[in-house]
Amino acid sequence: MIQVTVWNEYRHEKTHATIRQIYPEGMHAPIAQHLRNEGLTVRVATLDEPEHGLSEAVLANTDVLTWWGHMAHDEVRDEIVARVQRRVLEGMGLIVLHSGHYSKIFRRLMGTACTLRWRAVGEKERVWVVEPSHPIAAGLGEYFEIPHSEMYGERFDIPAPEALVFVSWFQGGEVFRGGCCFQRGHGKIFYFSPGHETHPIYHQPEILRVIANAVRWAAPTAGVPQGGNQERPTPLETL
Amino acid sequence: MIQVTVWNEYRHEKTHATIRQIYPEGMHAPIAQHLRNEGLTVRVATLDEPEHGLSEAVLANTDVLTWWGHMAHDEVRDEIVARVQRRVLEGMGLIVLHSGHYSKIFRRLMGTACTLRWRAVGEKERVWVVEPSHPIAAGLGEYFEIPHSEMYGERFDIPAPEALVFVSWFQGGEVFRGGCCFQRGHGKIFYFSPGHETHPIYHQPEILRVIANAVRWAAPTAGVPQGGNQERPTPLETL
Amino acid sequence: MIQVTVWNEYRHEKTHATIRQIYPEGMHAPIAQHLRNEGLTVRVATLDEPEHGLSEAVLANTDVLTWWGHMAHDEVRDEIVARVQRRVLEGMGLIVLHSGHYSKIFRRLMGTACTLRWRAVGEKERVWVVEPSHPIAAGLGEYFEIPHSEMYGERFDIPAPEALVFVSWFQGGEVFRGGCCFQRGHGKIFYFSPGHETHPIYHQPEILRVIANAVRWAAPTAGVPQGGNQERPTPLETL
Amino acid sequence: MIQVTVWNEYRHEKTHATIRQIYPEGMHAPIAQHLRNEGLTVRVATLDEPEHGLSEAVLANTDVLTWWGHMAHDEVRDEIVARVQRRVLEGMGLIVLHSGHYSKIFRRLMGTACTLRWRAVGEKERVWVVEPSHPIAAGLGEYFEIPHSEMYGERFDIPAPEALVFVSWFQGGEVFRGGCCFQRGHGKIFYFSPGHETHPIYHQPEILRVIANAVRWAAPTAGVPQGGNQERPTPLETL
Repeated sequence: MIQVTVWNEYRHEKTHATIRQIYPEGMHAPIAQHLRNEGLTVRVATLDEPEHGLSEAVLANTDVLTWWGHMAHDEVRDEIVARVQRRVLEGMGLIVLHSGHYSKIFRRLMGTACTLRWRAVGEKERVWVVEPSHPIAAGLGEYFEIPHSEMYGERFDIPAPEALVFVSWFQGGEVFRGGCCFQRGHGKIFYFSPGHETHPIYHQPEILRVIANAVRWAAPTAGVPQGGNQERPTPLETL
Repeated sequence: MIQVTVWNEYRHEKTHATIRQIYPEGMHAPIAQHLRNEGLTVRVATLDEPEHGLSEAVLANTDVLTWWGHMAHDEVRDEIVARVQRRVLEGMGLIVLHSGHYSKIFRRLMGTACTLRWRAVGEKERVWVVEPSHPIAAGLGEYFEIPHSEMYGERFDIPAPEALVFVSWFQGGEVFRGGCCFQRGHGKIFYFSPGHETHPIYHQPEILRVIANAVRWAAPTAGVPQGGNQERPTPLETL
Repeated sequence: MIQVTVWNEYRHEKTHATIRQIYPEGMHAPIAQHLRNEGLTVRVATLDEPEHGLSEAVLANTDVLTWWGHMAHDEVRDEIVARVQRRVLEGMGLIVLHSGHYSKIFRRLMGTACTLRWRAVGEKERVWVVEPSHPIAAGLGEYFEIPHSEMYGERFDIPAPEALVFVSWFQGGEVFRGGCCFQRGHGKIFYFSPGHETHPIYHQPEILRVIANAVRWAAPTAGVPQGGNQERPTPLETL
Repeated sequence: MIQVTVWNEYRHEKTHATIRQIYPEGMHAPIAQHLRNEGLTVRVATLDEPEHGLSEAVLANTDVLTWWGHMAHDEVRDEIVARVQRRVLEGMGLIVLHSGHYSKIFRRLMGTACTLRWRAVGEKERVWVVEPSHPIAAGLGEYFEIPHSEMYGERFDIPAPEALVFVSWFQGGEVFRGGCCFQRGHGKIFYFSPGHETHPIYHQPEILRVIANAVRWAAPTAGVPQGGNQERPTPLETL
């Protein structure tokens, strides 16, 4: 049984009435509900909880962590970021959503600036499936549309992804590598760009399907070595 | 001094008056002229010449071959395709242009169907630079536009490219991985999608710049082993 | 339920008494038996059957095909090779074993010569796990050993693999990328180098475990599009 | 003219007489001398200089930085590490040598633990060329040997390299991905494993050749955008 922790900064929903209308219980709520409907074990954690809700005990019992943050990236404490990174390297999956591209944890795992260009006019986005047989694309057609979306555009300053699953088209003239897979240590990472807080994107079935697919893909394989990252000497056996 | 052979099917220009107006001396002419202006040594070869202009002697003296074909892919003889493939594996660079995606040589080197979707209504194409520090993107801005282009869209059935330099946006709603790098054997391969015969695309400065950049990138490194591909036994030295 | 077809050239076992002693029912027998023990549905096919045992009907009901060939690569008919390639592009997994590196089907899917160096003195091979969290490495330790093996050494003329799972060390001084993953079209391909016919390698538990892991990894994801490779025009929708 | 800064921790050479015998002027000396012989402009910088010799002015005039560190990784100040990282993302090349695998700068750019196994008994290492046409392998044969080397072995906890140029064989039974290329932001990174301080490895011609090749490969392409990494909004142009 895959154990998921859905992490949300959970600030916009409290401070902006229009966003609260879309996500009255927070953006994490529809994501968590969908994953529960899919039979996964789901816990929610948010920035303003002690340790941001990400204690050692919580992370030790998390197979896959999803991450949404935006206005308060800087408030995430460095020791919690280091803790999450260590767990990813040990095998925990990480799904980074939308503005999470600029979170400390994603930038630390990528090693790059993770910058991009953006425009928030509610234009149409078409998400094209570039690798239709990738498990994260299961059940999708050749593309799906988001009627009103924030534009995220290239150049997206990330290392070349190990698999590029989705490329987005925007009405205003941009493209974006919006579905990217990475492996770091024993952990799988998926970045998925749609999800602006002012649009009901996390209520859209295709988006929820992608997140559920990604969680299953990122869950650690049975037999992942734990604690296998120590620098160490090797005894001489066969010389 | 890099020696380039610019290969063109050279049929559309003979049979379609409108295309002949755009390329009175063939699509190869402006490409060859630009490469000469850049100081490269350029030869032209076309389908209807003996051996399609690609004799053993010509290929032995070619560092980089550019390839444009469309309506007569099937007329390219298999032994010439095998000859070109062997030279690529030995280190000759290959630049595959536009409808060359469906040529025998490209499909043989990729191992896939190399299919795509298309639409020829002359819509606008924006070519986004996804890897701005790649040598093939040298001198370009963040994107450039082709006012009237044939749409090539995903899913493009190729192996994941080793470097993805350009992604195109189309007015009609599609995206395309239009600038893709591959290595096969000792040879570098670049696929570049713009170039429909009914538009003056090979007269556009950015397009010619990309082709020249790609030729320099694909030229074999000094010291490429020749004939290094034989299957062979290894004597026992150190056991 | 994954349906596997275990294909074997099945010549050495008939013509060489020493090999027949190791594999009295053919090299395919222990592989097929192990996969059955693992709960998979297994069929066997061999070169000398009609259509090499790979009729359209057989391939249409095969999720993953394993391939061992050596002395009779040239006897595999081109139309059967094309049929297998088409099925891989549609989503069938392919596990290429040992001397299958030089088979028509592998070379066609790779686009390269697939040459390597070799030495058959029965030296020790150590298979190192380079990506310990890859599903193909599940259940293995940091390395395992083959007491007597044929050496396969670099340079192995393949496209850079999309994932490199194993690298082999040989007592005589060579290294080899012996566990390589590729995607072509919708199909997953795994090349696994151990398996010389004069050693009981396909009786070794680690080898059988890797093959079973690879079969599960290469099985098509639910929802793989069928027949999605046609070149086709796209109607104008949104321009 | 490529401007190189050769950085050395420069501690072992001062504190260990046996190492000083091999490198009386520091390990950086033979590297710097060879690069000067190759016509490059070379500056040396060491840990104990102010700002570790890596002031803003020095880095602004550095095309490629080479890095050797070991016993004092922790003494490298975080703001200097951040400065080097920023310059790499802007386009400066970085060549990380031997025990630099565990430096702050390499780990920060990789996002992983960068651990490995090691053994220092002076065994033989054979460096195999896996990509013979890569510019970093120019002028080498199929392999070269280091008579006495420190063993570095897999699992090496790095992201999958974008190009794998060398794989090392060790007499004691290990393999290692010892020549790895990465791109981060606009900067090229090459990790090269040979170079233990107790052996005269930086006097060996093949090693010096690889370093010079790598410096040329990593030098920024003309036209690399400077300061192009700002997160920024995009005006609406074409919607």
